Amino acid sequence: MKVLEDRIRQEGLILSHTVLKVDSFLNHQVDTQLALEIGREFGRIFVDQPITKVLTIEASGIQFAMATGIALNVPFIYAKKKKAITLSEQVYSAPVHSFTRQETYQVSISQKYLGPNDKVLIVDDFLATGAALVGLVDIVKESGAELVGVGCVIEKSFQEGRGLLEDKGVKVHSLARISSMSPGEIHFVEE
Amino acid sequence: MKVLEDRIRQEGLILSHTVLKVDSFLNHQVDTQLALEIGREFGRIFVDQPITKVLTIEASGIQFAMATGIALNVPFIYAKKKKAITLSEQVYSAPVHSFTRQETYQVSISQKYLGPNDKVLIVDDFLATGAALVGLVDIVKESGAELVGVGCVIEKSFQEGRGLLEDKGVKVHSLARISSMSPGEIHFVEE
Repeated sequence: MKVLEDRIRQEGLILSHTVLKVDSFLNHQVDTQLALEIGREFGRIFVDQPITKVLTIEASGIQFAMATGIALNVPFIYAKKKKAITLSEQVYSAPVHSFTRQETYQVSISQKYLGPNDKVLIVDDFLATGAALVGLVDIVKESGAELVGVGCVIEKSFQEGRGLLEDKGVKVHSLARISSMSPGEIHFVEE
Repeated sequence: MKVLEDRIRQEGLILSHTVLKVDSFLNHQVDTQLALEIGREFGRIFVDQPITKVLTIEASGIQFAMATGIALNVPFIYAKKKKAITLSEQVYSAPVHSFTRQETYQVSISQKYLGPNDKVLIVDDFLATGAALVGLVDIVKESGAELVGVGCVIEKSFQEGRGLLEDKGVKVHSLARISSMSPGEIHFVEE
Protein backbone atom coordinates (compact mmCIF):
# COMPACT_ATOMS: atom_id res chain seq x y z
CA MET A 1 0.00 0.00 0.00
CA LYS A 2 2.01 2.89 -1.34
CA VAL A 3 0.51 5.70 0.75
CA LEU A 4 1.35 3.70 3.87
CA GLU A 5 4.93 2.91 2.80
CA ASP A 6 5.49 6.58 1.94
CA ARG A 7 4.20 7.64 5.33
CA ILE A 8 6.45 5.14 7.10
CA ARG A 9 9.45 6.52 5.17
CA GLN A 10 8.48 10.10 6.09
CA GLU A 11 7.43 9.73 9.72
CA GLY A 12 8.60 6.35 10.97
CA LEU A 13 11.39 6.45 13.55
CA ILE A 14 13.79 3.54 13.25
CA LEU A 15 15.40 3.04 16.65
CA SER A 16 17.27 -0.18 15.82
CA HIS A 17 17.25 -3.10 13.38
CA THR A 18 14.01 -4.32 14.98
CA VAL A 19 12.26 -1.30 16.57
CA LEU A 20 10.17 1.01 14.36
CA LYS A 21 8.04 3.75 15.93
CA VAL A 22 4.99 4.87 14.00
CA ASP A 23 3.22 6.53 16.90
CA SER A 24 2.75 9.88 15.14
CA PHE A 25 0.14 8.44 12.77
CA LEU A 26 -0.72 4.79 13.57
CA ASN A 27 -0.59 3.69 17.19
CA HIS A 28 -0.55 6.57 19.67
CA GLN A 29 -1.64 9.54 17.64
CA VAL A 30 -3.82 8.12 14.85
CA ASP A 31 -4.48 9.64 11.42
CA THR A 32 -8.16 8.73 11.16
CA GLN A 33 -8.30 9.16 7.37
CA LEU A 34 -5.31 6.86 6.87
CA ALA A 35 -6.82 4.32 9.29
CA LEU A 36 -10.07 4.36 7.25
CA GLU A 37 -8.07 3.83 4.06
CA ILE A 38 -6.28 0.86 5.68
CA GLY A 39 -9.68 -0.61 6.57
CA ARG A 40 -10.90 -0.16 2.99
CA GLU A 41 -7.77 -1.91 1.72
CA PHE A 42 -8.39 -4.95 3.95
CA GLY A 43 -11.99 -4.85 2.74
CA ARG A 44 -10.79 -5.00 -0.88
CA ILE A 45 -8.33 -7.84 -0.21
CA PHE A 46 -10.92 -10.03 1.52
CA VAL A 47 -13.95 -8.88 -0.53
CA ASP A 48 -14.80 -12.38 -1.83
CA GLN A 49 -15.20 -13.79 1.70
CA PRO A 50 -18.50 -13.44 3.63
CA ILE A 51 -16.76 -12.26 6.80
CA THR A 52 -19.07 -11.97 9.82
CA LYS A 53 -16.62 -10.54 12.38
CA VAL A 54 -13.26 -8.83 12.59
CA LEU A 55 -11.06 -9.83 15.54
CA THR A 56 -8.14 -7.91 17.04
CA ILE A 57 -6.35 -7.44 20.34
CA GLU A 58 -6.33 -4.38 22.59
CA ALA A 59 -5.10 -1.72 22.30
CA SER A 60 -3.29 -0.84 19.06
CA GLY A 61 -5.32 -3.13 16.85
CA ILE A 62 -8.62 -1.46 17.69
CA GLN A 63 -8.47 1.46 15.26
CA PHE A 64 -7.71 -0.88 12.34
CA ALA A 65 -10.33 -3.47 13.31
CA MET A 66 -12.82 -0.60 13.60
CA ALA A 67 -11.87 0.71 10.14
CA THR A 68 -12.11 -2.79 8.65
CA GLY A 69 -15.45 -3.39 10.37
CA ILE A 70 -16.70 -0.12 8.85
CA ALA A 71 -15.50 -1.16 5.38
CA LEU A 72 -17.10 -4.64 5.65
CA ASN A 73 -20.14 -3.42 7.63
CA VAL A 74 -19.64 -6.05 10.36
CA PRO A 75 -18.90 -5.81 14.10
CA PHE A 76 -15.42 -6.28 15.50
CA ILE A 77 -14.22 -7.87 18.72
CA TYR A 78 -11.09 -6.95 20.62
CA ALA A 79 -9.47 -9.58 22.80
CA LYS A 80 -8.65 -8.37 26.30
CA LYS A 81 -5.18 -8.75 27.74
CA LYS A 82 -6.24 -9.60 31.26
CA LYS A 83 -9.38 -11.00 32.78
CA ALA A 84 -11.28 -8.02 34.18
CA ILE A 85 -13.82 -8.23 37.01
CA THR A 86 -16.62 -7.42 34.56
CA LEU A 87 -15.54 -10.17 32.12
CA SER A 88 -16.97 -12.89 34.34
CA GLU A 89 -18.50 -15.38 31.91
CA GLN A 90 -16.83 -18.19 29.97
CA VAL A 91 -13.92 -17.08 27.82
CA TYR A 92 -11.64 -18.48 25.14
CA SER A 93 -8.06 -17.64 26.08
CA ALA A 94 -4.44 -18.08 25.06
CA PRO A 95 -1.10 -17.02 26.57
CA VAL A 96 0.93 -14.39 24.68
CA HIS A 97 4.49 -13.24 25.31
CA SER A 98 5.17 -9.57 24.57
CA PHE A 99 8.78 -8.96 23.53
CA THR A 100 8.23 -5.17 23.65
CA ARG A 101 7.06 -5.26 27.26
CA GLN A 102 8.99 -8.39 28.28
CA GLU A 103 6.02 -10.06 29.94
CA THR A 104 3.55 -12.87 29.33
CA TYR A 105 -0.15 -12.12 29.56
CA GLN A 106 -3.40 -13.95 28.91
CA VAL A 107 -5.60 -12.82 26.01
CA SER A 108 -9.25 -13.71 26.20
CA ILE A 109 -12.58 -13.15 24.51
CA SER A 110 -16.07 -13.96 25.70
CA GLN A 111 -17.41 -17.20 24.25
CA LYS A 112 -20.67 -15.37 23.54
CA TYR A 113 -19.21 -13.46 20.62
CA LEU A 114 -17.50 -16.12 18.51
CA GLY A 115 -18.80 -19.51 17.37
CA PRO A 116 -19.03 -22.06 14.54
CA ASN A 117 -21.25 -19.79 12.41
CA ASP A 118 -18.64 -17.05 12.21
CA LYS A 119 -16.15 -16.30 9.45
CA VAL A 120 -13.39 -14.27 11.04
CA LEU A 121 -10.76 -11.88 9.75
CA ILE A 122 -7.99 -11.10 12.25
CA VAL A 123 -6.47 -7.62 11.99
CA ASP A 124 -3.54 -6.11 13.89
CA ASP A 125 -1.11 -3.22 13.63
CA PHE A 126 2.18 -5.18 13.61
CA LEU A 127 3.32 -8.64 12.57
CA ALA A 128 6.78 -9.35 13.98
CA THR A 129 7.29 -12.38 16.23
CA GLY A 130 3.66 -13.31 15.62
CA ALA A 131 3.08 -14.05 19.32
CA ALA A 132 -0.17 -12.09 19.69
CA LEU A 133 -1.51 -13.24 16.32
CA VAL A 134 -0.79 -16.91 16.98
CA GLY A 135 -2.76 -16.50 20.23
CA LEU A 136 -5.70 -15.03 18.33
CA VAL A 137 -5.54 -17.80 15.70
CA ASP A 138 -5.68 -20.41 18.49
CA ILE A 139 -8.70 -18.65 20.00
CA VAL A 140 -10.54 -18.67 16.66
CA LYS A 141 -9.77 -22.38 16.26
CA GLU A 142 -11.01 -23.11 19.79
CA SER A 143 -14.28 -21.27 19.06
CA GLY A 144 -15.05 -23.40 15.99
CA ALA A 145 -15.26 -20.30 13.79
CA GLU A 146 -13.69 -20.28 10.33
CA LEU A 147 -10.55 -18.16 9.99
CA VAL A 148 -10.53 -16.31 6.67
CA GLY A 149 -7.09 -14.78 7.11
CA VAL A 150 -4.89 -12.32 8.95
CA GLY A 151 -4.45 -8.71 7.87
CA CYS A 152 -1.49 -6.75 9.26
CA VAL A 153 -0.77 -3.09 8.74
CA ILE A 154 3.04 -3.41 9.02
CA GLU A 155 5.02 -6.63 8.77
CA LYS A 156 8.63 -7.03 9.81
CA SER A 157 9.32 -9.72 7.23
CA PHE A 158 12.75 -10.47 8.71
CA GLN A 159 11.12 -11.81 11.88
CA GLU A 160 9.44 -15.19 12.28
CA GLY A 161 5.77 -14.19 12.59
CA ARG A 162 4.63 -14.82 9.01
CA GLY A 163 6.30 -18.26 8.97
CA LEU A 164 4.60 -19.28 12.23
CA LEU A 165 1.18 -18.27 10.87
CA GLU A 166 1.70 -19.88 7.45
CA ASP A 167 2.80 -23.10 9.17
CA LYS A 168 -0.67 -23.12 10.71
CA GLY A 169 -2.22 -22.78 7.24
CA VAL A 170 -3.19 -19.13 7.76
CA LYS A 171 -3.35 -16.67 4.83
CA VAL A 172 -1.41 -13.51 5.74
CA HIS A 173 -1.80 -10.13 4.01
CA SER A 174 0.33 -7.20 5.15
CA LEU A 175 -0.02 -3.69 3.74
CA ALA A 176 3.64 -2.71 4.26
CA ARG A 177 6.28 -5.46 4.41
CA ILE A 178 9.65 -4.34 5.72
CA SER A 179 12.49 -6.54 4.48
CA SER A 180 15.19 -4.75 6.50
CA MET A 181 15.78 -1.53 8.38
CA SER A 182 18.38 0.36 10.37
CA PRO A 183 18.46 3.97 11.62
CA GLY A 184 18.05 6.19 8.56
CA GLU A 185 17.27 3.34 6.15
CA ILE A 186 14.27 1.14 5.42
CA HIS A 187 13.53 -1.37 2.67
CA PHE A 188 10.20 -2.89 1.73
CA VAL A 189 9.56 -6.27 0.12
CA GLU A 190 8.91 -5.78 -3.61
CA GLU A 191 5.43 -7.10 -4.45
CA MET B 1 -29.25 9.65 22.41
CA LYS B 2 -32.32 7.51 22.05
CA VAL B 3 -30.85 4.74 19.88
CA LEU B 4 -28.13 4.26 22.50
CA GLU B 5 -30.50 4.23 25.49
CA ASP B 6 -32.73 1.71 23.67
CA ARG B 7 -29.75 -0.52 22.98
CA ILE B 8 -28.63 -0.35 26.63
CA ARG B 9 -32.15 -1.36 27.73
CA GLN B 10 -32.15 -4.27 25.25
CA GLU B 11 -28.62 -5.61 25.60
CA GLY B 12 -27.05 -4.10 28.73
CA LEU B 13 -26.46 -6.54 31.56
CA ILE B 14 -26.93 -4.97 34.97
CA LEU B 15 -24.89 -7.00 37.45
CA SER B 16 -25.39 -4.73 40.47
CA HIS B 17 -26.32 -1.14 41.40
CA THR B 18 -23.01 0.01 39.94
CA VAL B 19 -21.89 -2.57 37.33
CA LEU B 20 -23.36 -2.42 33.81
CA LYS B 21 -21.97 -4.63 31.05
CA VAL B 22 -22.34 -3.40 27.49
CA ASP B 23 -19.72 -5.66 25.97
CA SER B 24 -22.01 -7.11 23.29
CA PHE B 25 -22.08 -3.81 21.37
CA LEU B 26 -19.76 -1.17 22.90
CA ASN B 27 -16.58 -2.35 24.59
CA HIS B 28 -15.63 -5.93 23.73
CA GLN B 29 -17.69 -6.71 20.67
CA VAL B 30 -18.32 -3.36 18.96
CA ASP B 31 -21.22 -2.42 16.68
CA THR B 32 -19.25 -0.33 14.19
CA GLN B 33 -22.31 1.46 12.81
CA LEU B 34 -23.46 2.49 16.31
CA ALA B 35 -19.91 3.62 17.16
CA LEU B 36 -19.89 5.81 14.02
CA GLU B 37 -23.27 7.28 15.01
CA ILE B 38 -21.87 8.05 18.49
CA GLY B 39 -18.94 9.85 16.84
CA ARG B 40 -21.31 11.88 14.65
CA GLU B 41 -23.33 12.85 17.74
CA PHE B 42 -20.20 14.16 19.51
CA GLY B 43 -19.38 15.97 16.28
CA ARG B 44 -22.80 17.67 16.33
CA ILE B 45 -22.53 18.62 20.02
CA PHE B 46 -19.10 20.24 19.63
CA VAL B 47 -19.60 21.52 16.05
CA ASP B 48 -19.00 25.19 16.94
CA GLN B 49 -15.52 24.46 18.35
CA PRO B 50 -12.45 24.29 16.08
CA ILE B 51 -11.22 21.05 17.66
CA THR B 52 -7.76 19.96 16.49
CA LYS B 53 -7.46 16.64 18.35
CA VAL B 54 -9.56 14.06 20.12
CA LEU B 55 -7.99 12.47 23.21
CA THR B 56 -8.94 9.19 24.88
CA ILE B 57 -7.39 6.41 26.94
CA GLU B 58 -6.68 2.83 25.90
CA ALA B 59 -8.43 0.54 25.34
CA SER B 60 -12.22 1.02 25.43
CA GLY B 61 -12.17 4.68 24.47
CA ILE B 62 -10.38 4.06 21.16
CA GLN B 63 -13.39 3.11 19.02
CA PHE B 64 -15.29 6.24 20.11
CA ALA B 65 -12.30 8.57 19.72
CA MET B 66 -11.79 7.07 16.26
CA ALA B 67 -15.46 7.63 15.36
CA THR B 68 -15.33 11.21 16.68
CA GLY B 69 -12.07 11.86 14.82
CA ILE B 70 -13.76 10.62 11.63
CA ALA B 71 -16.76 12.91 12.21
CA LEU B 72 -14.56 15.97 12.92
CA ASN B 73 -11.87 14.99 10.39
CA VAL B 74 -9.06 15.32 12.94
CA PRO B 75 -6.54 12.85 14.42
CA PHE B 76 -7.03 11.26 17.80
CA ILE B 77 -4.53 10.32 20.50
CA TYR B 78 -4.92 7.50 22.98
CA ALA B 79 -3.14 7.76 26.31
CA LYS B 80 -1.20 4.64 27.25
CA LYS B 81 -1.66 2.97 30.59
CA LYS B 82 1.94 2.02 31.14
CA LYS B 83 5.22 3.31 29.88
CA ALA B 84 6.28 0.97 27.09
CA ILE B 85 9.87 0.46 25.98
CA THR B 86 9.08 2.09 22.64
CA LEU B 87 7.52 5.19 24.31
CA SER B 88 10.89 6.53 25.30
CA GLU B 89 10.63 10.29 24.78
CA GLN B 90 9.18 12.94 27.08
CA VAL B 91 5.63 12.29 28.22
CA TYR B 92 2.84 14.05 30.07
CA SER B 93 1.49 11.67 32.70
CA ALA B 94 -1.00 11.32 35.54
CA PRO B 95 -1.85 8.53 38.03
CA VAL B 96 -5.27 6.87 37.68
CA HIS B 97 -6.96 4.44 40.04
CA SER B 98 -9.15 1.81 38.35
CA PHE B 99 -12.01 0.68 40.59
CA THR B 100 -12.93 -2.08 38.14
CA ARG B 101 -9.46 -3.59 38.22
CA GLN B 102 -8.53 -2.42 41.74
CA GLU B 103 -5.16 -1.03 40.75
CA THR B 104 -3.42 2.28 40.17
CA TYR B 105 -1.60 2.84 36.91
CA GLN B 106 0.12 5.71 35.15
CA VAL B 107 -1.45 7.16 32.01
CA SER B 108 0.85 8.99 29.65
CA ILE B 109 1.01 10.63 26.26
CA SER B 110 3.99 11.78 24.27
CA GLN B 111 4.62 15.53 24.57
CA LYS B 112 5.09 15.62 20.80
CA TYR B 113 1.38 15.26 20.11
CA LEU B 114 -0.26 17.87 22.35
CA GLY B 115 0.65 21.50 22.88
CA PRO B 116 -0.59 25.10 23.32
CA ASN B 117 -1.93 25.29 19.75
CA ASP B 118 -4.35 22.39 20.25
CA LYS B 119 -8.05 22.50 21.07
CA VAL B 120 -8.88 19.13 22.58
CA LEU B 121 -12.05 17.11 23.00
CA ILE B 122 -11.71 14.20 25.45
CA VAL B 123 -13.89 11.16 24.67
CA ASP B 124 -14.39 7.97 26.70
CA ASP B 125 -16.82 5.07 26.99
CA PHE B 126 -17.82 5.46 30.66
CA LEU B 127 -18.03 8.30 33.17
CA ALA B 128 -18.43 6.87 36.68
CA THR B 129 -15.87 7.79 39.35
CA GLY B 130 -14.19 10.06 36.82
CA ALA B 131 -10.72 8.81 37.75
CA ALA B 132 -9.46 8.23 34.21
CA LEU B 133 -11.05 11.40 32.85
CA VAL B 134 -9.64 13.59 35.62
CA GLY B 135 -6.22 12.17 34.71
CA LEU B 136 -6.73 13.10 31.05
CA VAL B 137 -7.94 16.60 32.00
CA ASP B 138 -4.78 17.11 34.06
CA ILE B 139 -2.66 15.96 31.11
CA VAL B 140 -4.36 18.45 28.76
CA LYS B 141 -3.81 21.23 31.30
CA GLU B 142 -0.13 20.27 31.66
CA SER B 143 0.31 20.39 27.87
CA GLY B 144 -0.99 23.95 27.59
CA ALA B 145 -3.70 22.86 25.14
CA GLU B 146 -7.25 24.21 25.43
CA LEU B 147 -9.82 21.70 26.68
CA VAL B 148 -13.09 22.11 24.78
CA GLY B 149 -15.00 19.52 26.79
CA VAL B 150 -15.49 15.88 27.69
CA GLY B 151 -17.81 13.56 25.76
CA CYS B 152 -18.86 10.28 27.40
CA VAL B 153 -20.88 7.52 25.85
CA ILE B 154 -22.48 6.32 29.12
CA GLU B 155 -22.59 8.23 32.39
CA LYS B 156 -23.46 6.75 35.76
CA SER B 157 -24.93 9.98 37.07
CA PHE B 158 -25.24 8.57 40.58
CA GLN B 159 -21.44 8.43 40.88
CA GLU B 160 -19.13 11.36 41.51
CA GLY B 161 -17.35 11.67 38.14
CA ARG B 162 -19.41 14.51 36.62
CA GLY B 163 -19.10 16.57 39.80
CA LEU B 164 -15.32 16.16 39.90
CA LEU B 165 -15.02 17.29 36.27
CA GLU B 166 -17.43 20.22 36.63
CA ASP B 167 -15.54 21.37 39.75
CA LYS B 168 -12.54 21.73 37.40
CA GLY B 169 -14.64 23.88 35.07
CA VAL B 170 -14.97 21.16 32.43
CA LYS B 171 -18.06 20.92 30.17
CA VAL B 172 -19.38 17.34 30.21
CA HIS B 173 -21.71 15.84 27.59
CA SER B 174 -22.88 12.26 27.99
CA LEU B 175 -25.02 10.47 25.43
CA ALA B 176 -26.80 8.19 27.93
CA ARG B 177 -27.07 9.31 31.57
CA ILE B 178 -28.13 6.59 33.98
CA SER B 179 -29.80 7.97 37.10
CA SER B 180 -30.18 4.58 38.80
CA MET B 181 -30.07 0.88 38.01
CA SER B 182 -30.45 -2.55 39.58
CA PRO B 183 -30.72 -6.00 38.00
CA GLY B 184 -33.71 -5.89 35.63
CA GLU B 185 -34.26 -2.14 35.92
CA ILE B 186 -32.56 0.98 34.55
CA HIS B 187 -33.51 4.66 34.59
CA PHE B 188 -32.06 7.47 32.54
CA VAL B 189 -31.86 11.16 33.45
CA GLU B 190 -34.65 13.02 31.60
CA GLU B 191 -33.10 15.69 29.41
